[in-house]
Amino acid sequence: MDEHARKVALRMIPYALYLVGTRNAEVADPQADLNAFVASWVTQCSFDPPLVALGLKRGTRGNAMVRASRVFTLNLLGAEQKDLAIRFFKDFPVDEATMAGVRYARGETGAPVLLDLPAHVECRVVAIHEDGGDHDVVVAEVVAAGVRSEHARPLTHAETGWHYGG
Amino acid sequence: MDEHARKVALRMIPYALYLVGTRNAEVADPQADLNAFVASWVTQCSFDPPLVALGLKRGTRGNAMVRASRVFTLNLLGAEQKDLAIRFFKDFPVDEATMAGVRYARGETGAPVLLDLPAHVECRVVAIHEDGGDHDVVVAEVVAAGVRSEHARPLTHAETGWHYGG
Repeated sequence: MDEHARKVALRMIPYALYLVGTRNAEVADPQADLNAFVASWVTQCSFDPPLVALGLKRGTRGNAMVRASRVFTLNLLGAEQKDLAIRFFKDFPVDEATMAGVRYARGETGAPVLLDLPAHVECRVVAIHEDGGDHDVVVAEVVAAGVRSEHARPLTHAETGWHYGG
Repeated sequence: MDEHARKVALRMIPYALYLVGTRNAEVADPQADLNAFVASWVTQCSFDPPLVALGLKRGTRGNAMVRASRVFTLNLLGAEQKDLAIRFFKDFPVDEATMAGVRYARGETGAPVLLDLPAHVECRVVAIHEDGGDHDVVVAEVVAAGVRSEHARPLTHAETGWHYGG
């Protein structure tokens, strides 16, 4: 295989950046209960019921929390929120009202909805597929949604200059 | 669920447009053997090995051909190729050298590589997941790739004004 061609071709696939909000099932302390991490590999995969598929790296805390709780929020970052996304690349504080300084509220699944981002969907996991890759394919049903900025443009890889693919 | 919010949020996910090239396993006549259709729901889902996941509508000829042959090409349309994409929405002629007037060559899997498009990957199906939705999630390994226009911008939904999601 032409590795350079593979990288160039796969990097032409456009991606946005998301904050995936997760919770543990049975922990009262927000710092221990809640987490959020940046993800990119997302596509819808059904209209009825509405399903999304996410590529989630194996062996991460975020992946483990999605497996344990079977719920998450998919929070769409706006085009101007690159700096906000960067805060989630390292450890950050969580209190009763904020994660990494970003306001949140519990959604109906108990997972955190990040209120300073333009839109989100809440998801319940339907299946987690391990197909021999270094990420799992998590298929989840969209059970709730909210929009705070209807005409926001998403924060895309093209916009950030980052890559996750190839 | 707030259906309007769900639609707005899911439509913020960026997508490109692809021509998925398929073949039947055992047919000599190009018109009967080869097909190509427009798809949007695509994400990479592993680096090592390189895997992609596609949402493919159930009950279509394209889906049936991917199931039967277990191979396909994922051809990335360039930003200026909306009119070319439209040709694949209805029946089109296939001869020894062109599909819908677009030049092709057989890849190493036997599936058609569309030579007028900027880049492609060839894929072998690893798994086809039916998770209760109206599309299957096809996970496939990238086994070959080619680039003809390294700096091409992809044809995105934003560019076409089309939607497939919500």
